[in-house]
Amino acid sequence: MTLQALIDQIHSLDMPALVAARRRQDDLTKPRGSLGRLEELSCRVSGMMAQMPPLIRDKAVIVMAGDHGVVAEGVSAYPSDVTAQMVANFLQGGAAINVLARHTGTRVVVVDMGVATDLQPKTEGFILPEEQAELVIKKIARGTGNIARRAGMTRQQAIDSILAGVAVAESQIENDVDILATGDMGIGNTTPSAAIAAALTGYPAHKFIGRGAGLDDAGLNRKLSAVERALAVNQPNPMDGIDVLAKVGGFEIGGLTGVILAAAARRKPVVIDGFISTAAALLAASLAPASCDYMIAAHRSQEQGHNLMLEWLKLEPLLDLGMRLGEGTGAVLAMSLVEAACKILAEMATFHGAGVSDKL
Amino acid sequence: MTLQALIDQIHSLDMPALVAARRRQDDLTKPRGSLGRLEELSCRVSGMMAQMPPLIRDKAVIVMAGDHGVVAEGVSAYPSDVTAQMVANFLQGGAAINVLARHTGTRVVVVDMGVATDLQPKTEGFILPEEQAELVIKKIARGTGNIARRAGMTRQQAIDSILAGVAVAESQIENDVDILATGDMGIGNTTPSAAIAAALTGYPAHKFIGRGAGLDDAGLNRKLSAVERALAVNQPNPMDGIDVLAKVGGFEIGGLTGVILAAAARRKPVVIDGFISTAAALLAASLAPASCDYMIAAHRSQEQGHNLMLEWLKLEPLLDLGMRLGEGTGAVLAMSLVEAACKILAEMATFHGAGVSDKL
Repeated sequence: MTLQALIDQIHSLDMPALVAARRRQDDLTKPRGSLGRLEELSCRVSGMMAQMPPLIRDKAVIVMAGDHGVVAEGVSAYPSDVTAQMVANFLQGGAAINVLARHTGTRVVVVDMGVATDLQPKTEGFILPEEQAELVIKKIARGTGNIARRAGMTRQQAIDSILAGVAVAESQIENDVDILATGDMGIGNTTPSAAIAAALTGYPAHKFIGRGAGLDDAGLNRKLSAVERALAVNQPNPMDGIDVLAKVGGFEIGGLTGVILAAAARRKPVVIDGFISTAAALLAASLAPASCDYMIAAHRSQEQGHNLMLEWLKLEPLLDLGMRLGEGTGAVLAMSLVEAACKILAEMATFHGAGVSDKL
Repeated sequence: MTLQALIDQIHSLDMPALVAARRRQDDLTKPRGSLGRLEELSCRVSGMMAQMPPLIRDKAVIVMAGDHGVVAEGVSAYPSDVTAQMVANFLQGGAAINVLARHTGTRVVVVDMGVATDLQPKTEGFILPEEQAELVIKKIARGTGNIARRAGMTRQQAIDSILAGVAVAESQIENDVDILATGDMGIGNTTPSAAIAAALTGYPAHKFIGRGAGLDDAGLNRKLSAVERALAVNQPNPMDGIDVLAKVGGFEIGGLTGVILAAAARRKPVVIDGFISTAAALLAASLAPASCDYMIAAHRSQEQGHNLMLEWLKLEPLLDLGMRLGEGTGAVLAMSLVEAACKILAEMATFHGAGVSDKL
């Protein structure tokens, strides 16, 4: 399928299902409105899935990994090798995302979108059974070009990365996954994310420059300079999301954009993690504004500028726990809240059914 | 055991376990501090349990139910009958707390502390297996007196209600429950909770007068008048928590105070739900200031004045979802986050163990 054909399949929320959910919320054995945002959330998900109550069979977090040539500019506190090392950690079940995914009953799908070294789909020592974590190879290239000096990738690679994300998401959806969470791993990837945010929103770059995984003050200055040069050298066209992704983005960010667009086209909610995932959401919104209806913001990241990105998307996050790890860690915690909200609609008794007196 | 003997068993956090948890957090395969409040939380729980990593085998929510004579003053949008009807709903698994407890793998323990009608421990139609919900009868009396006109209960009943809560909590802890959540059901119980908060904090009553389950403006005025009269008629002594509970409290609130004190004495974390549970936490804090170390505030309730109570206790809630239902609904969601935080300490790989390079 072409990207345009996919985008044409994205429609706004199903109003009959959404209205039916509101009606049901008012019949359940609790004061009206007393579950606050969980009620609103369950109604939105009903509208997304065109189903009331919405049935969530399986949950998956798609953790997209890629490397970044711009690390050569000294924009990260960790060396690029850590991307591949952390992918191995994901497959061995020892990373934060594994712990939180097990806790919430979530499948982990790790995707090599553009890691600099080669990973094997099933290397010895990768011990997790497939239902816990799987590795999908969709490598577009071994890392992006240094965006501070040239384009990160070609226009075709940008399109290919989005379509790879679409394919990964669709394969999960075909296997009974009814809700997706986004996650990322890529040393240096707050830098392209900041560049994407600045390019698409028009705000000055410094608003999106944070410490990432733990940059010191000198590193912050190098990062700001790298993003400003990336924008000046590449002149990404803010009206063309593909151009922005190609010139200042990353392969894992393109993949996540595809995951979000595919979820929207298939009427599934997609829970957006932190800074990098929200950059992908900005790209998805610029390519298909209707996809915003399917986005649920997981949490307010501690990373500088994340809040501004959420405001731009008109998304209010569910959690605010001072997290800034990525990997989809905030998203799987929030996804469990979304599932809880849907179960309220499906499992709670009504006033009439339970023989409980309604309001005086 | 006497109440004083229990209180004497409450000690502050275990610093060696807390420090060991901080050290371990810094060795795990993630940038230091990147899991935000989950890290701090896991360290606090290590200190509470004097165990690193803290092991949570089972979770339980204790939902204490009671009726309130003050309902005669027109302070609730629902009739008193609803308390017993909702207890039956809990035992049939149809209430919001059941749905959220099943979602998070939490036992539901419903306690009749003072429901106006008689409940049977195992009535036909109560269909839930014991591991899903159980009913414990600790009825002190059939509802409190009307606090707007006289004391809600005797001093001995106040002590008995706290000790009943202690017994319920200890029985759960003896059955491998390592973390407790508080919940409440009692038509009219935001009124005694507001009176307790005003009496203990010294703030004027109107700061704690909210709409409860859905009061209209006229009801709000009646409620304010009832709380002001309760304080004027009874003159509760703010230096004596038992006196405050006896004169303007409720049986389920006393029971929850006992749950909190028992958790603290047994070094278990206790997750405090919303407005009513926090009134019980204020009582526990006044009886045993060290018990605050074991409290985790679940969420910021939408009920007017809850925030002020949390500030008084110096507790920062984990969730802020506009909920105001009670039953322990916010607490079980937050308890799942606490469990996740503990699993991070127990299950994540270290940099060295996973062969991941640390910061440059």
